Amino acid sequence: MTELSVQGLPISAIAEEFGTPLYLYDGDVLTETYTTLRRLLHPALELYFSLKANPNVSVCAELVALGAGAEVSSDIELRTAASAGAGPESTIFLGPGKSDDELRACVDAGIRAIVVESESELLRLDRLVANRAPVDVLLRVNPSFTTKGSGLSMGGKPRQFGIDEEQVPAVVALADNLPGVRVRGLHAYMGTRFLDPADVVHNTSQILRMAEELHRECGVELNTVDVGGGLGVAYFDSEKDFDVEALASELNQVVAQFVAAHPDTRLIMELGRYLVARAGTYVVRVRDVKQSRGETFVIADGGTNHHMAAVGVGSYVKRNFPIRSLTRSDEAATEPCTITGPLCTPNDVVGKRVQLPPVAIGDLLGVERSGAYGPTASPVQFLSHGYPAEVLVRDGVAHLVRHRDTADDLLGRQLLIERQ
Amino acid sequence: MTELSVQGLPISAIAEEFGTPLYLYDGDVLTETYTTLRRLLHPALELYFSLKANPNVSVCAELVALGAGAEVSSDIELRTAASAGAGPESTIFLGPGKSDDELRACVDAGIRAIVVESESELLRLDRLVANRAPVDVLLRVNPSFTTKGSGLSMGGKPRQFGIDEEQVPAVVALADNLPGVRVRGLHAYMGTRFLDPADVVHNTSQILRMAEELHRECGVELNTVDVGGGLGVAYFDSEKDFDVEALASELNQVVAQFVAAHPDTRLIMELGRYLVARAGTYVVRVRDVKQSRGETFVIADGGTNHHMAAVGVGSYVKRNFPIRSLTRSDEAATEPCTITGPLCTPNDVVGKRVQLPPVAIGDLLGVERSGAYGPTASPVQFLSHGYPAEVLVRDGVAHLVRHRDTADDLLGRQLLIERQ
Repeated sequence: MTELSVQGLPISAIAEEFGTPLYLYDGDVLTETYTTLRRLLHPALELYFSLKANPNVSVCAELVALGAGAEVSSDIELRTAASAGAGPESTIFLGPGKSDDELRACVDAGIRAIVVESESELLRLDRLVANRAPVDVLLRVNPSFTTKGSGLSMGGKPRQFGIDEEQVPAVVALADNLPGVRVRGLHAYMGTRFLDPADVVHNTSQILRMAEELHRECGVELNTVDVGGGLGVAYFDSEKDFDVEALASELNQVVAQFVAAHPDTRLIMELGRYLVARAGTYVVRVRDVKQSRGETFVIADGGTNHHMAAVGVGSYVKRNFPIRSLTRSDEAATEPCTITGPLCTPNDVVGKRVQLPPVAIGDLLGVERSGAYGPTASPVQFLSHGYPAEVLVRDGVAHLVRHRDTADDLLGRQLLIERQ
Repeated sequence: MTELSVQGLPISAIAEEFGTPLYLYDGDVLTETYTTLRRLLHPALELYFSLKANPNVSVCAELVALGAGAEVSSDIELRTAASAGAGPESTIFLGPGKSDDELRACVDAGIRAIVVESESELLRLDRLVANRAPVDVLLRVNPSFTTKGSGLSMGGKPRQFGIDEEQVPAVVALADNLPGVRVRGLHAYMGTRFLDPADVVHNTSQILRMAEELHRECGVELNTVDVGGGLGVAYFDSEKDFDVEALASELNQVVAQFVAAHPDTRLIMELGRYLVARAGTYVVRVRDVKQSRGETFVIADGGTNHHMAAVGVGSYVKRNFPIRSLTRSDEAATEPCTITGPLCTPNDVVGKRVQLPPVAIGDLLGVERSGAYGPTASPVQFLSHGYPAEVLVRDGVAHLVRHRDTADDLLGRQLLIERQ
């Protein structure tokens, strides 16, 4: 029986040292993913990491060190990006419902651009800037065209995000009279988890076409156009990984054409899931194995409290993330097991009838491709289990990059009312 | 325009003092809910609060002070219950995948019973007890009969919970030879969110019948029978609140009959959602109001990052929790508004086309009946927004019972790998 390892380190040793449940990131995969994409895509396309996919400061620092910019959506993400080494000139802030404090923090930090999501946000920002130098903003556009290939299509519908395309000229005209803001370009985001490069090419072309039209129509500056992103990874059996070579061969032509017409425009592509998902494994240890009415249940020390995505919200049929035994990797897969966590709900199913070699108490299991939308997108405080540890392996060394929550982390912020 | 208040305190003043987003609990509602149920139900039925529904120590302390026992499912919940004043003699611990540390903590605390979920857990516990006095356990049974009236039916199916009814006699026989454990009775839990008292009566009767049968069949002791619970509250338009008077009039007969035959048996009913849901309101402040293609969007400072239940997972059609304006309570409801939070996903919808009086930036909105499965069942760290503040109003005084997460809470546990 062969144990699985990361950069030559047995995962069992990492699990022993840092405990389970554990999110384990492979720095080599982060590097390979980013550098491949960077090498293939047109140089005019700047790559920004969307911290929401994984806001761990050390994960972010790996990507920033490779050259990624930072796309953030909260004050804490702004601080995280700065700690990770992202300069303000390569940081943008977007998201609906920004607080005044968040807008002020952006102004104080002098980030490259605030992506404004509504007319009233633009007015609010202008007031906050007051007598200082105007800040650069991009207008987020809710396009009038629709898209395809994503579960969450973003165009052509009423949305909480951005300014409807039809309203953009009026907002640009308004901005011309606001001393605190300077509209430098546009932003659009068409959806998530695209697996067909043709869809991304289509969407990007449409966004660039829209940008040109709006530029002609209302003179909006095109210093920067953020074309969103949404590149997916394959999670489920029926899916095929995104083909970045195919993407590059088509998209680079579209970009080259646009750049030829607009040589001073900088283009941004945002990438969250694509950059980090494959680098992460959720590692759990088996606490119990039992039979119930002909079905084998493997009960692990962590479950959907740390990995909500595994529940498969949004699909009618439960589909499993890739899951493997980290203890018995070379034994034949013979038994279908349902893998559950420590919660008291029947929904706490990490994998349903997963084919695994015979599993014993104490074994380690890994839910792969789990580096994106992991613990931060999960109810980590459910049943007061708390946030798991996070470990990043770099240059063959395992580094703890997030302490597991302690009792004090979970209880220390609560207050017991004194009783007379 | 009248402002809404809790125990005479305007919610606007509470929001001003403690900030938003905020979970606000009304101690009077907690008290009224518990005492009404206690007054109506047969005295042989002991009421245990399931901390998983709301593990705030001060919320728990209110119910414990009224006489509730504590049903916990993690080491931290065990500590919370103790801090809240629950004695070990009125604390039980249940849940799949208990750790050795959790089992040891139960033994050390001398709690009333550990609810054992599998044969291997029983063996593990026996080994941990070693040469100490035997510990009291209940066997959780996965019944062979099915139930109805719950979205999550728990009987008659393969499950990660408990021991299949058919296997119980063998486990009881095994336990007789284990010096570390003493089986004192049985536990079964049939589902959640029952709104029809007849379903609870039906399930309880079935569980008690099963307990009697198993007692006859294998001599299992019936010192304690935990009949679960699962009493629901109405969240959606089509639902009617659970009628506890109707429950009592039927259930008390069933209990009386059982008690007459088994005068030494203690019965436990577990209640989570029912005891706390109506007492809690999720209070958010409006940051933006915008029109998009004919739809009005109200963007608040908190959303499904704090209130995942509002997403409506598990139902095909989005149903809204009761939501009201806390600022303009007496104005006629005229406008359908879609209420969203600060996340960057179109799924961050707290309420879809909710009828509200005209909403302005700065208004307060309340998502009512939100005292159960609130922030701890939500991805509070998504976009690094963190855990909201929690406030409990008791005797006309608003007490902070959980600090809002600070930047240090969110970042202080992370580690940045040094770069050469």
